[in-house]
Amino acid sequence: MVATGGFLYEHLADELGQAIDRGALRAGDRLPSVRRLAQERSVSVATVLEAYLRLENAGLIEVRPKSGHFVRRRGMLTAEPRSPRACATPSRVTVSDAYTKILQAMRDPELLPFGCATIDPTYLPIAALNRIVTQVTREMTTVGARYEGAPGLLTLRRQIARRSVDAGVALSEADLCTTIGATEGLSLALRAVAKPGDVIAVESPAYFGVLQAIEGLGMRALEIPASPRTGFDVSALEEIVRTQPVRAVVVTPTVSNPTGSIMPDDEKERLVKVTRKLDLPVIEDDVYGELVFDGSRPRPLRAFAGPSDDSHVLLVSSVSKTLAPGYRVGWIAGGRWHDQIVRIKYSQSLACPTLPGMAVAEFLASGGYDRHLRRLRAAVAGNVERYREAIATQFPDGTRVSAPRGGFVLWVELPPGVDALALHEQALRRRIVVAPGPLFSARQRFANFIRISAGSPWSDRVADGIRTLARLIARE
Amino acid sequence: MVATGGFLYEHLADELGQAIDRGALRAGDRLPSVRRLAQERSVSVATVLEAYLRLENAGLIEVRPKSGHFVRRRGMLTAEPRSPRACATPSRVTVSDAYTKILQAMRDPELLPFGCATIDPTYLPIAALNRIVTQVTREMTTVGARYEGAPGLLTLRRQIARRSVDAGVALSEADLCTTIGATEGLSLALRAVAKPGDVIAVESPAYFGVLQAIEGLGMRALEIPASPRTGFDVSALEEIVRTQPVRAVVVTPTVSNPTGSIMPDDEKERLVKVTRKLDLPVIEDDVYGELVFDGSRPRPLRAFAGPSDDSHVLLVSSVSKTLAPGYRVGWIAGGRWHDQIVRIKYSQSLACPTLPGMAVAEFLASGGYDRHLRRLRAAVAGNVERYREAIATQFPDGTRVSAPRGGFVLWVELPPGVDALALHEQALRRRIVVAPGPLFSARQRFANFIRISAGSPWSDRVADGIRTLARLIARE
Repeated sequence: MVATGGFLYEHLADELGQAIDRGALRAGDRLPSVRRLAQERSVSVATVLEAYLRLENAGLIEVRPKSGHFVRRRGMLTAEPRSPRACATPSRVTVSDAYTKILQAMRDPELLPFGCATIDPTYLPIAALNRIVTQVTREMTTVGARYEGAPGLLTLRRQIARRSVDAGVALSEADLCTTIGATEGLSLALRAVAKPGDVIAVESPAYFGVLQAIEGLGMRALEIPASPRTGFDVSALEEIVRTQPVRAVVVTPTVSNPTGSIMPDDEKERLVKVTRKLDLPVIEDDVYGELVFDGSRPRPLRAFAGPSDDSHVLLVSSVSKTLAPGYRVGWIAGGRWHDQIVRIKYSQSLACPTLPGMAVAEFLASGGYDRHLRRLRAAVAGNVERYREAIATQFPDGTRVSAPRGGFVLWVELPPGVDALALHEQALRRRIVVAPGPLFSARQRFANFIRISAGSPWSDRVADGIRTLARLIARE
Repeated sequence: MVATGGFLYEHLADELGQAIDRGALRAGDRLPSVRRLAQERSVSVATVLEAYLRLENAGLIEVRPKSGHFVRRRGMLTAEPRSPRACATPSRVTVSDAYTKILQAMRDPELLPFGCATIDPTYLPIAALNRIVTQVTREMTTVGARYEGAPGLLTLRRQIARRSVDAGVALSEADLCTTIGATEGLSLALRAVAKPGDVIAVESPAYFGVLQAIEGLGMRALEIPASPRTGFDVSALEEIVRTQPVRAVVVTPTVSNPTGSIMPDDEKERLVKVTRKLDLPVIEDDVYGELVFDGSRPRPLRAFAGPSDDSHVLLVSSVSKTLAPGYRVGWIAGGRWHDQIVRIKYSQSLACPTLPGMAVAEFLASGGYDRHLRRLRAAVAGNVERYREAIATQFPDGTRVSAPRGGFVLWVELPPGVDALALHEQALRRRIVVAPGPLFSARQRFANFIRISAGSPWSDRVADGIRTLARLIARE
């Protein structure tokens, strides 16, 4: 946005600043020499110098003696956030006000949704799904009106089972129960394997939905350190079960939320072995399994855990991150708790809506899913890189940002002393939602962390949002 | 179905038997005289006599000396089932195998669904809903793909609020949270007002879904006697709270399931007053509120309970009994627990599917709902009477059957000694599902009761089913 009034150097500085925000000029890029730019723009050298000085003062560019002006990439900026230390006592999760606000923000299109791990509908095959819905209502007139009680729609379970084979887990339709998104899957899994008061081991940081589910059921969370690269620390679990009565584990082996870590296969194998020995059920959240940037499809933990109907690994997933969040189509392969889960599902919500399940089943059967996933992965990888660079170039020194290998969220460690909860409040007043770090911990750790979702395409509005955040953080 | 072989008298007996089953000949109707029928059918008097004898032996007709042959209405048959006695100790609910089988039977169109309180799709405005779905996907292309987190779709909550005013409860959209059918509403309500181990007072008999939800959450059910006419016994509750630490009440004031009772307004008023004094939350299930045969719309309990946002009555309902079970559109007006319910909903299932909610909102806004309800009430009232008469004329002496004033289930007390669980098993082998009485009690009372749903239109298949049941019961 070029100001209509003001000095020429201000216009020029604004224009270049926006080019940096948009990524047209990237960290490390050399800017045109003062003389050349003056010629190109038909302005005086003094005007260009003044504009560069302004950008320098704003922290956007730097002068390298005898080399010229460069877009700044500051200090430790591309360093990844650090892992938390182990903590030997379980905690009651405290429901934070921020949690409710973030979820309410999902409903308000006026807010910039950096706080929600949702993908912009423009990336999703909505038109194709809509066509299928229309077709389904035409061809199977009354079917959509009928209950499809747990374990849920057979055609959908068949398609999920078929895809699971490609992912290295040979599930059958009989292993599956459909759920209202992965959220209900997690809730059912927890209810099946544990009871109120029980201790559940979670990654630290952990997806706040898991922590809220644990709290809601009167259970306690015990945080196991996780690396932003390799995820869940199996050794730390082994250590902690010596002193703590852990009842179950919840883990996201592929693209953990918020860090984006992926557990190596040998670590998954070890986790399965250790938990089997300890007789510990493991609830696996695989919602990002199809969203690894390099197109690899890491095998779920469940693939390492033996016969489906006797497995101690409960696999939970959905199409909410890849097809249609609003359809709420999820599933659980409950292993040895399958029958129990079906029964709990009956008393918790009886049946999933038929029509959305049918549409997703048809879409999966149509064969367009893999093609869509290829496009989606490329798009979100680009987004993540774009957001990451904007954060790296604009957030203050001492900021660290995750380098996720999939998904679409960034885990950002702000300089020590920055209060993420206060930042969340200030950002909200500017109509920007970020997820503050303490939400990802039952003990309100990560006081100076935020999670930023790159689920929306890059735009001036997003660029403005990142810039505003940078300013707020610098002020903190 | 007239046999192609066999004697003439057999054909005639079959034909008349079917007329009785279909209701063309009703209990108490006089059959044509032997002579007249012989003339009409051009058969011998002996053939008619033989046919009548056959029907008499089958228990379908009776001879009244000097009057002729009449369709039989046996003994106490139209008497209503008796109320249970009070029981002063709470129970852990036991999940019955029959429960799972009944719910699975919902999925099998090969089975006669006498066991499920579902309405046949032919009675529902599926075509209109389908048209709306198509329209919604066209006009609001990407909207259906978005999360609509709790408290859920605003347009839907507005329509529900609007209708609540007509029903005498002035709810606003802010009082409501949408749910996955009434089942999730019940689950959320229980989770909000009570914790594991707590005692929940329920009607006896109670809808088994309520009992299963209580069991699933580790709570205990305490049965309060209910009359098949006036429902929940407030005095019995007053009595029982003197010795028992009751934490909450679940009640269906309008058309209880299974008895079909309706609480008189003064009893509702009393229940509200008593529970308010005792500081007891009351969870009200209103799913049959629109299905009272005479078209009256009894005010929900909630209407008697003061300001919406401070109410101690939590109103739960859905459109599953009147519009589209498979859409899973329900809601809860959680009163003073509203915020807490929204939070639990987040961690239990996050959001309801957007598309079904939009379709129902549009349908309600279109104004066709009341017209549909008038037709539906007439249809189910007719069904209930038809089923009731078939049961009354064919089930053995000593059978009592409820006279519901709304809804579409019948509560049948079989002669003492009949084992409803065994009957359920035997019927299942003949591809008929009935809901055995013990399901409706946490203490497995009602050993000789069954619930029969009249949600499907009368047909030869239904008539055969009732006849088969009558035979099985007689043999017991």
